[in-house]
Amino acid sequence: MKSFRKEFWLNLPTRVAFVNITRQVQECVRESAVTEGMALVNSMHITASVFINDDESGLHHDYATWLEKLAPHAPIQQYRHNDTGEDNADAHMKRQVMGREVVVAISAGKLDFGPWEQIFYGEFDGRRKKRVLVKIIGE
Amino acid sequence: MKSFRKEFWLNLPTRVAFVNITRQVQECVRESAVTEGMALVNSMHITASVFINDDESGLHHDYATWLEKLAPHAPIQQYRHNDTGEDNADAHMKRQVMGREVVVAISAGKLDFGPWEQIFYGEFDGRRKKRVLVKIIGE
Amino acid sequence: MKSFRKEFWLNLPTRVAFVNITRQVQECVRESAVTEGMALVNSMHITASVFINDDESGLHHDYATWLEKLAPHAPIQQYRHNDTGEDNADAHMKRQVMGREVVVAISAGKLDFGPWEQIFYGEFDGRRKKRVLVKIIGE
Repeated sequence: MKSFRKEFWLNLPTRVAFVNITRQVQECVRESAVTEGMALVNSMHITASVFINDDESGLHHDYATWLEKLAPHAPIQQYRHNDTGEDNADAHMKRQVMGREVVVAISAGKLDFGPWEQIFYGEFDGRRKKRVLVKIIGE
Repeated sequence: MKSFRKEFWLNLPTRVAFVNITRQVQECVRESAVTEGMALVNSMHITASVFINDDESGLHHDYATWLEKLAPHAPIQQYRHNDTGEDNADAHMKRQVMGREVVVAISAGKLDFGPWEQIFYGEFDGRRKKRVLVKIIGE
Repeated sequence: MKSFRKEFWLNLPTRVAFVNITRQVQECVRESAVTEGMALVNSMHITASVFINDDESGLHHDYATWLEKLAPHAPIQQYRHNDTGEDNADAHMKRQVMGREVVVAISAGKLDFGPWEQIFYGEFDGRRKKRVLVKIIGE
């Protein structure tokens, strides 16, 4: 069994943002030399997500609006977590809706994807450095 | 390490539907001859889910109603994604709540499940052909 | 390839509760003797979650409040699932928001975590015995 591990950093200028990281993950698959296996891609931070969906800017706008409705940022005093001095309780909720991680099949040396699947990093408390982990196992 | 891959197709007659696919996944485990490992089951499409829950029709009705409340289909103009000519922005949201994939342990050659766990395909933009991927690795 | 499997039981005195199970999972990783691989941790029950987030009591209070807003327990007659004699339809929904499982990288014999990542069992229909499964594969 082969295994491979790589972290990469992001530092996004806005509180909420979506970044397509498919190319970085594909590069990891290539470097790993795994042809049959699984790739785990996860945020190492608890106010961010990794998820798979469409690379369409209108949709990303809709996600941001919808998540803000499900878990509003303000007023920040509505959350007990923010009594600790944080203002990011809403980000911990948004991240649960969108998920922490994806597991993707690797087949014939490639991410085994349907036609529209793309991997995104979802930031809900940006303006600071954060990491994504790619772990690959297989043969 | 053994690996196994299979796709299967669904074409559901309604926009929203839930289909129990446990038997198909069990058959994949048998075909794979993996006795200890993991099975990844994911939708290859971004407006559908694979998830694990109860095979109870009342619950599925409740899921459909609840998801419609969290992310309403209409009016379709409320979503910027639908400016592209699509009408399925809500389906991209419903899929995030229910999840893209499940990872299931394989132990002693079987899906290692609790008493009520069943695997479902959740469709949120049906009336077209879509695929589910089963990828198994182990020994 | 090595594989490892362990179940452990919980019996929580309240309907909704969050329990940090990171230590138990770490102990499984140690017992497995896997140094490079993946750990799957999942609820074996369909009204409970396993998820990764912060060990902060204010946040857990916020999660409980927020999930109750997204999928209220009462009135129980609003759910068709409860026509079966159950009163836990809401728990099946809360569990979908928070997720069934996590997959965690194992690197150098340890859970490969960011600074704040902790694994939680999320109970949404407690006051009964339930199981969590830890499955580890790797080398």
